Formats: sequence, structure tokens, C-alpha cells
Amino acid sequence: MIVIMKPGTPQKEIDRLSEALTAKGVEVSPVIGKDLIILGLVGDTSKIDDNWVEANRNVERVMHVAEPFKKANRMFHPQPSVIDVCGQKVGGDSRLAMIAGPCSVESEEQICQIARDVKQAGANFLRGGAFKPRTSPYAFQGLKYDGLELLMEAREQTGLPIVTEIMAPHDIEIFEREVDVIQVGARNMQNFDLLRELGQTRKPILLKRGLSATIEEWLMSAEYIMAGGNENVILCERGIRTFERYTRNTLDLSAIPAIRKLSHLPVIVDPSHATGKWWMVDPLAKAAIAVGADGLIIEVHNDPANALCDGQQSIKPDVYAQLLSEIRPIAAAVGRKL
Amino acid sequence: MIVIMKPGTPQKEIDRLSEALTAKGVEVSPVIGKDLIILGLVGDTSKIDDNWVEANRNVERVMHVAEPFKKANRMFHPQPSVIDVCGQKVGGDSRLAMIAGPCSVESEEQICQIARDVKQAGANFLRGGAFKPRTSPYAFQGLKYDGLELLMEAREQTGLPIVTEIMAPHDIEIFEREVDVIQVGARNMQNFDLLRELGQTRKPILLKRGLSATIEEWLMSAEYIMAGGNENVILCERGIRTFERYTRNTLDLSAIPAIRKLSHLPVIVDPSHATGKWWMVDPLAKAAIAVGADGLIIEVHNDPANALCDGQQSIKPDVYAQLLSEIRPIAAAVGRKL
Amino acid sequence: MIVIMKPGTPQKEIDRLSEALTAKGVEVSPVIGKDLIILGLVGDTSKIDDNWVEANRNVERVMHVAEPFKKANRMFHPQPSVIDVCGQKVGGDSRLAMIAGPCSVESEEQICQIARDVKQAGANFLRGGAFKPRTSPYAFQGLKYDGLELLMEAREQTGLPIVTEIMAPHDIEIFEREVDVIQVGARNMQNFDLLRELGQTRKPILLKRGLSATIEEWLMSAEYIMAGGNENVILCERGIRTFERYTRNTLDLSAIPAIRKLSHLPVIVDPSHATGKWWMVDPLAKAAIAVGADGLIIEVHNDPANALCDGQQSIKPDVYAQLLSEIRPIAAAVGRKL
Amino acid sequence: MIVIMKPGTPQKEIDRLSEALTAKGVEVSPVIGKDLIILGLVGDTSKIDDNWVEANRNVERVMHVAEPFKKANRMFHPQPSVIDVCGQKVGGDSRLAMIAGPCSVESEEQICQIARDVKQAGANFLRGGAFKPRTSPYAFQGLKYDGLELLMEAREQTGLPIVTEIMAPHDIEIFEREVDVIQVGARNMQNFDLLRELGQTRKPILLKRGLSATIEEWLMSAEYIMAGGNENVILCERGIRTFERYTRNTLDLSAIPAIRKLSHLPVIVDPSHATGKWWMVDPLAKAAIAVGADGLIIEVHNDPANALCDGQQSIKPDVYAQLLSEIRPIAAAVGRKL
Repeated sequence: MIVIMKPGTPQKEIDRLSEALTAKGVEVSPVIGKDLIILGLVGDTSKIDDNWVEANRNVERVMHVAEPFKKANRMFHPQPSVIDVCGQKVGGDSRLAMIAGPCSVESEEQICQIARDVKQAGANFLRGGAFKPRTSPYAFQGLKYDGLELLMEAREQTGLPIVTEIMAPHDIEIFEREVDVIQVGARNMQNFDLLRELGQTRKPILLKRGLSATIEEWLMSAEYIMAGGNENVILCERGIRTFERYTRNTLDLSAIPAIRKLSHLPVIVDPSHATGKWWMVDPLAKAAIAVGADGLIIEVHNDPANALCDGQQSIKPDVYAQLLSEIRPIAAAVGRKL
Repeated sequence: MIVIMKPGTPQKEIDRLSEALTAKGVEVSPVIGKDLIILGLVGDTSKIDDNWVEANRNVERVMHVAEPFKKANRMFHPQPSVIDVCGQKVGGDSRLAMIAGPCSVESEEQICQIARDVKQAGANFLRGGAFKPRTSPYAFQGLKYDGLELLMEAREQTGLPIVTEIMAPHDIEIFEREVDVIQVGARNMQNFDLLRELGQTRKPILLKRGLSATIEEWLMSAEYIMAGGNENVILCERGIRTFERYTRNTLDLSAIPAIRKLSHLPVIVDPSHATGKWWMVDPLAKAAIAVGADGLIIEVHNDPANALCDGQQSIKPDVYAQLLSEIRPIAAAVGRKL
Repeated sequence: MIVIMKPGTPQKEIDRLSEALTAKGVEVSPVIGKDLIILGLVGDTSKIDDNWVEANRNVERVMHVAEPFKKANRMFHPQPSVIDVCGQKVGGDSRLAMIAGPCSVESEEQICQIARDVKQAGANFLRGGAFKPRTSPYAFQGLKYDGLELLMEAREQTGLPIVTEIMAPHDIEIFEREVDVIQVGARNMQNFDLLRELGQTRKPILLKRGLSATIEEWLMSAEYIMAGGNENVILCERGIRTFERYTRNTLDLSAIPAIRKLSHLPVIVDPSHATGKWWMVDPLAKAAIAVGADGLIIEVHNDPANALCDGQQSIKPDVYAQLLSEIRPIAAAVGRKL
Repeated sequence: MIVIMKPGTPQKEIDRLSEALTAKGVEVSPVIGKDLIILGLVGDTSKIDDNWVEANRNVERVMHVAEPFKKANRMFHPQPSVIDVCGQKVGGDSRLAMIAGPCSVESEEQICQIARDVKQAGANFLRGGAFKPRTSPYAFQGLKYDGLELLMEAREQTGLPIVTEIMAPHDIEIFEREVDVIQVGARNMQNFDLLRELGQTRKPILLKRGLSATIEEWLMSAEYIMAGGNENVILCERGIRTFERYTRNTLDLSAIPAIRKLSHLPVIVDPSHATGKWWMVDPLAKAAIAVGADGLIIEVHNDPANALCDGQQSIKPDVYAQLLSEIRPIAAAVGRKL
């Protein structure tokens, strides 16, 4: 941690702040020049709130050198984490996680048929929304608990572990019992109450990046879950909000190597939500694997034109099967298999 | 609602979609030219999900003409809404809402002293955080229920209604009973579960704009609350996330006239969080009143350098008093009083 | 300047870099802890390119403490600059600069009529585009040199100094001779060749902020002009590009106090281009004055519905006159006059 | 083109606007419902300026159905364009364009050595900056005309066509004579004067996307060049400006399939400038090929730690050679060769 002081700050004020900081248990090394007065803080700076330091009127600003995340930090955990989901591994050198299924669970026939189709195509996880976060209160909000039941039925029939989104803390108990990977959606990435309670479970959590979350904030949200003791976090890049509106969001594939460098957690990519366009899923799925993602979550629907939500970004099972076959040599080229 | 079809779509496909749309109860008027095939939909289009339409492979895209919000829409409620909080009015021609107080409630002495100070300076509401959403799980998270008690004590002593943030649905009962204005923070603006449950109360809700929420999405979140029957929503602009990093966020003052045109709900401004810099609070507070805001929420702390959070954006009570006196003629110039 | 090195960098490498830096004439103070290795550089760091330092594989990153602009920096020029334009002053405590006129010069009658109207309303400068930067090569590109002639005629008739945009270096000679304030548009804010050549003149330059320029980059563009010897730079905030699309751009009024703190140059606001909506000009013009701008540049057209460009953001002369009369008390409230 | 009118607009006003539009040579089809009044315009709408229409106070807004670019539009030119550069082809099914070289030309030895190295590694074009756009007027601005001479010498020795950036219209003559591909940098993407003059040459132009340019604006800039008669435009995605600051810019790989759908022009990717970090070049280069780019432009320097600019994003020749060998199977997987 580095404290930049205003040029011309009197020595007395520098000393006063240095003493206050020393009293908090860190070692303070001042560097003082004509235009530069900085205090280098060495030691455990985690107790020092930079807002408190910046509130000192002689302080220009505070700069962080160390990342604020600890448990998610690769520096303290150099080996990639491998998350076990019902015996399947995600991360490290494991087989790529191929998560597929409809945006919403609509009926038993729909979800079970799609589950069989995506399994046959090569998927190893089934996704499907039971609780749907929708911008409009008047839009279809999902089948809710009935949807969960149908997902369980599809798992029963295919053996695919199920991935589905949670929207409120009061559902954690049922999700913990019945769901294999609990998804936290982009809009809830900083629903700290929800994150904290998920930290009390030991379930794998799929943590989507918020629409305007920096990579650091995203890792801090993972840290919330991990701080509670649940280290089974899988990150998911799904596009960020930018000025460009041709695509629904801008898929930030640079985030994948960034996460690999900063963290040991696995990270997958959602090309369907990122672009909002079914014909972009294919090229971006390939790019995601080439850039080093640990898997893909893709919307697949057997009848996109009649899907209850997000049909415009869903592909059909045969297109999905074709995509996976084309991804195989790319995965091989970057040392992964599928 | 307008459906743009791909150039060259066969007549048969146009007819098929038109019939499907007609079956949903709207009237379809096709406009067909060489490079332009559109279907104009007249009637109640609220049942038609544009994702469903866009999933049709002959559809280029769907354009909305009418705004998706109904209860929040000025078109159906031309008079500005005036929200009553313990007898004080917010919105319309009412006196400006001047909400002030510390970022966090820290102690009885602190909150009560600040409450007296801001009241004397001219504030008519007290703010103070009991539950704090923090990016880091290791940062101070607020005094929680004890903080609520202290706020109640400060209200008891000063008569100022209290405004404080809720973070989870399970706290609604206590907030409904004890708090005067329930604040929904930027990070929870699309916590739909929370919004829906707040719609079941009749408490005034202060709904902050999300970091990357469009004006339309913000109004849709208000709509979630109003759809449940609670029409007491006050909007709060607090800065959006942009590429500029000199300020913490970019205060979007154009949102104020935009909201006035689109909605009848009152809208206030938070210059403290928007900029993250105490010396910017003064000019931006003045600009907010000049642009037509219905009030201001400002962080005031009696000892910013030792505040437990956000000290760098807090001003002292005497600075606040001075600010209000300077705002008075600006308010008068735009036909408001304080 | 602070160099953050990677944790675990061997002492030998730290010494090597320190020596290389010392050889460039700065004093290097190392601060070394377990997780923190920084080098504080004191002295004239302007010769040290941070790219060169960051290319060292042991360097994590480089942080700047001092701002990179010198001539534009308030630190070295504490008094606000006052720019003289044909005897009228802009900046400091001067009368507010009220620049008004049509987007494009269209005809002698049009420009002269509008010039008379805005002068009567209280404007002290006439704006009008002769060379128009348009996104489409097929759109009206301005009357060019004929437009300049017409502006000169309008100046002749009214005495108002003229402000108009330059698009290419080869026009500098004629602009220097005939124009009173040379405007550099947002799209050319980093046309360094143009800036450099304008630095060779002594004409007042109105430098608009680029669509996605940070405040620092904007000041660096001013620095390009000033480095050539022309210190007559007036900055103009005109909205930045963000995710919000209800307004054409997002007017960043926080930039005004930021510029005041960082620089001594005057700064004005363009509410017309920022929002792209005529009915937003009024509230945002008021907010701009309240926040401390040194003036306004506003599009006024006598027949907006038939304007050759940007009619949707132009107001009529009588609306402009009304606006100025309403701005007067706001200006007074912040210690300025108009 | 669709004109949305305000609800409640009187029939008389609708008729008036319809007539005015008809007079401009388009056919007007009104669709009128209770909440929806639209005019569908069929025919050649290119003469109708939407600003003019939006300035009509009864008009809510104008929506475009057809893209505003014509010569760059895939609709009117379904086959991908293949650009010939000294006998080498770019675009379509051609061999991938592998452009490599230093950020800046520094010396004869440097540029010739790098040219030989990248040629041996598999590059088929040499890049190198002679004129450098730098944010600071005090930073190294390139060797200018001497740099051009050195590039020509390197071409002489290796046979690699040279790609270098132009910064001002007055250099077009020498660039046209001596350079093989003229690069227009991100900051000049909307320097319309420069684009227009480049349209008068027949040289291949490498048009980089502006920092905050939408895909449509980028294609409109290509249209400026093509409208002049020069159809040899190669697009280059190099990252856009977003809120994320871990990377210098956010590489928008979705732009590649978007350009493929909208346009027939070839599009390549610059992973070096996009990220500003040398260790991200490898994964993003692979992703760029997987997503369907027609080539890559990569910064290669034989001594990054002593490069005069952008050393932190440059890779060494042997790393580049290794990268190309790893890209080969990915290229094959998407049907391209290198």
C-alpha cells in the first residue's frame, strides 16, 4: 500500500500520519522529494481502510500494490483449483466443462429432450433456468420450484449434473439439497448477503461477472464466498456493458488470461448471453476455448422460435453437436480436451 | 412495437408471422418495400415477448416505440407524484428533500450529534448506513441492527425521518416497522426478489440507479416495486460507471430532465457517492438543484478523517450549512424552495 | 513516479533497474517489504518513459504521482488564465462567455439573422459550422470557405467574434487570418498534427473533449497546443460516450470542478451536442453555470425543423433569450455575471 | 427508415410531414394505432437527414432499418473482398495476413534485424511506426521521414511489404509512393479530411477502429474512403475503451463476426495494443484466429526492455515464431491457413 501525500505537506503532518499508520501495525517508509511525498506501507495492510487514509486532507490518494483478494489469489495458491462436481472435474487440466441447455425450463418434455440431446452432443452438464431474473415484472419469471423438479427429473434420466440460478437467500436450503452447481447471475454478483450465505455451503458456485464489474470486483465477490469457507467457485465471463450496442454485451475474452494470472479459480465463458445473437455463439465459443477458458455455458433449445425466453440467442441441438466437433481440434491445439 | 424483417423474406413467411402475432391479440400492419419489410403492431403488445419474435430467423430485430414501464410512466400519470414521508412531501412543488448524515452509523454520540447538526443546517431527513454493502468481505460491514437502534434514537432526538439501506429480503419486516424511507442501493437495483417484496409494503422506497443501469432499466426496477402496489418510489441518481476514473463514477445529471419527461416519480441526486471526492460535493449539489432535482442526499460527518467509511467524500456540518445557504438562490431561480 | 516490482524480484535485479534509473538522472529510493517492492523516483522524471520501465519483466507496473501536463497544470500557474478574444475576456472572474449560433452556416440571411437575434438575447460570441465533421460521407458537409465568408459578414454586422471549427491543418492559415476562436472538434481532439500546428499560432483555441477522452488526455491535448507556445486554450466539455443511449452522450459536469482543480485554463460547456435533445438544453445549461463553467456554447436556429443539421438539438432565439434571463440569478449565486 | 411520431399527434400534422417526405421522393406508409403512430418510408431514403426529421416537434424519433453504409455493405456485395498488396492477398480464403514488427522504427539495424526475424517466423508483412501519435507532446514522436527510409530498406532486404501509420494529409503523396499499406490509427478514425483524401488514392488502407467507435461508425469511416473510389480497405479491431482498466483496452472479438455479417471487407486483429500486456498477446492472438479474423498485427521487438515505445506489449521474435506454430492448427480448424 502506498500513500501519496500532497506536495508541500508539512513534515509535522507527514509524521502525524506515519505515527497513526504505525499504530495500526504496519511499517512506514517515507520517500520525500520536491514533487513527491509518499509513504510506503509494509506489513499487514489489510486492517487499513483506504477511505480512512484518503479522508486525511493531506493525502492525495492511496494506491494498492497487492491485490485485495486473498483466498482467490494465485500468489498464495499457485496451482489451479480443480472443482469436483458429482465426480466431474472443472479447472486445471480437466476435460472442458460443457454446460448446455435452455434459458428456461418450460416443461418435462422440453427439458428432458434437450438434456438427452446435449448429452449426446457431448455436453457434461445441464443448464436450465427455474428462477429467471427479468428486467420487466411483466415478463415470464420461470417455473420456479416446479422448474427445479423438472431439472431433477432430467438429471435422473441423463445423469448430467444440473446448473441453475438462485435469486434469493431463502432458497439456499433447497438449492443446496437439490442442485449440483448453484449459479449466481450477473445482476446478483454484488448481492453480498447472498454471497455470504453461499459461503456457508460447500456447493460449487458458478459466479457470473456483473455487467459492469471490474475483474478485481469480480474476484472480490468470489472472495466473499471463499471467506465463508466455500472454495468451490467457478467464474463465468458473460460480457460487459459498453457503448457498443450491436451485441447485447461485449464479451471480454481478455478476462480469461487475466483471471488465470490473478487467480487459481477455473473460469468459463457464456457466449450466448454475451452477444444475444445465436449466429455469434459459434465463433465466440471457439475463441473462448482458444483463449484458454475451462469450459462453455451455451443456450441450446430444441425450438428456439418458440422458446419462452432468449430464443434469439439459442442454438439447436444439432448445431451444438456440430460446434463441439469443430471445437475439438482447437481444444487440442491449446492442450485441452473435450 | 415494430418488427423489422430481413430483406427478401418470402411473403409466405411474412404472412405466417403476421398470423402468429394476430393470434396474440394485436393488429398487424405490414409495410413492404424493396429494402424494407416491417410489421407495425398496434394494440396491447405487452403480452408479446420480443425475444420470442427475434428468435424467428426471418426477423432482423424488434423495435419498441412505447416505453415498457406503465405505472412509472408519465404518459399515464401526467401530474408529478408527491411522496409523503411522515408528513413531509417529496416531489412536485414540495420543498426540496435535503437528506444528510454519515455514510455509516458508528455510535450513539456520532449519529445524534450529526443529526442535530444537519437539522440545524437545514436538512429535513437523516441518512446513515446500518447495513453496508462493501466490495471486500474484510471491510467494516456496518453496525447492523444496533445501527438501526441508534438511528431510531437520533430520530427520537431530532424528529428527522430516517433513510437507511436494506440489503436482504429477510430484513423487510423490521425496516417496514422502524425505518421511514427504505433505501435500495445501486448494487441491488436489479435484485428483483428484494424489489418484489418491497412492492408488498407501503413504505417510501429510495431507489438508487445501478452503476451501469440505463434510465429505462432503472424505471423498470421502479416498476417492479409499483407493480406490487407500492407507488411510493423516489429515484436517486448517484453516478454511472464510465471509462473516466478521475471521479469514482460519472454523475449523469441529464438523467434528471430525462426522468421528469418519462416519469412522474420524484428524483434526487447523491453527489457524494457519484464523485467520491468531498470538494466536488459543493459544485455538483448546486448543479443538481439547477437541473431540477427534487432533493439531495449528502454525506456529512463531524470527523471525516476518522470516519469508518467513505470519509474522503464526506463534508463537515458547517460546510453543509454553508452549502445549503448558497443553494437557496439557485433553488429560487428554478422555482423551488428549501 | 513509483515503480512497483514483482514480489520476489531478486535484489540483483532491483539494483540493476535502480542503477539504470539513476543513470537517467533521478534519485531512486527503494522501499522493500515481503509483499511490497517499490522504487520511489524523485527528481525530473519527465525523461523516463513508463513503457520502457514496464517492459522490464520484473516490473509489475508504474504509477504516476505527478500529472503529466506541465503548462496546463494549475500547480505551476495557480491563477486562472484569462483568454482575450478581440477584447472580450474568457475565464477567471470575467463575464460568462455566451457562444450561440446555428450548427451549420446555411445562408447569409440565416446566419446574419441568427447573429442579430442571439446578440440581442445576450450572447457575446457567434458560433456556426462552415466545415462539418459528419459520420456519413453522404451527409451535408458544410458550406466550407463560403461559410467562412458568411460568418465574417455576420461579424461585420453584429460585432460578435466568431467561433468555428477547423478540420485540417491546411486551413490554419485562413482560420488564423479570419476567425476569432478556432474550434477543435471532439473527433480531432487527438489529431496531434493539427494540435501541434495550432500551437504555432497565437489564436484562441476552443478544444472540445473527445468522446472517450479522460480528463487527463484532454489536458494533454491542451498541452500539445501550449507546448508550441500558444497558451490561449479554452476547454469545452460536450459529453462523453457511455452505455446510456437515451441522450446522445453523457454530459460530464464533474469535469468542470476537476478541470478547475487540475488546470488554470477556462472551461465551458456545450449542452446541445451533449444531449442531442433541444428540451434538455435549458436544464443542463443552468446546471453548467451552477457547477462553475466559464461559459456556454449553445445551438440556436431560427427554424430548427428545417435546419440542415442537428435541428433536433437547436433552440429558437426567443427560447435562448428566456434561458439567459433565467441563468442570470444562478450565475449571481455562484459569483459570476452574464 | 421509420419515423415514430408522438402519441396524440393530430392527423393534420401527420399529413403535413408525410407530404414533406413524399416530396423528397420516398413512399410513405402510415401505421396508426392508439399508442403507435409510425410512418414507414420505402424507397431511396439516403437523401433524408434524420436530424431534419427529428427536429420536427411531433416526431419522437427516427429509426433506421437499412445500414447507412453502402459500398462497405455485404448486402450489395455478398462475396468477401480480397485486397491485393504487392501480390499478396488479404481476405476471403487467402492465407492469413501476419503483420509483425516493432512499435517504432528505431535504427537500420533494429528494423532490418526484426524484419528478417519475423519473416523467418512466418510473417508476411512488416509493420513499424515512423510517425507516432503520442498522448504527450514530450514523448518520442518517431523518426518520421528517416523512419520511412529505414522501412524501405528493410523491405528491400526481406521482400516484406510495409505497413505504417499516416498522421496528416500532407504526407499522402510520399506514403502513396513508398508505403504498401497505409495505416490510419484509432485516433484518426474520424479524421474525415484524411479519410477523404485517402479515398483518392488506390493504396490499401488499414483502418483501425476508434477507441469508442461503434461498429457502424467504423464502417462509415471505411465508407468515406470507399466513396472516393478506393475500395482497398482492411479493417483492424484493436480494442475499445470500457470501464475495465486491467487491460489497456477491451478487445472486442465479437466485432469480427459482426463485420463479417455486415460487410465484405477483410478484418484483422491487433492483440498488442488491445491489451497493452505482452503475455496476453499469445492467448488473444489464438482467439482472434479462432473467431475468424483474416490476420493479425503483432508488435515484435528484439529487445522489448529497451524499446523506445510500447515495450511492455512487445514479444520477442522467438516467442512470435512459437506463437505462429501454435496458431497453425487453430487456423486449420476454422478452414484457414497461415
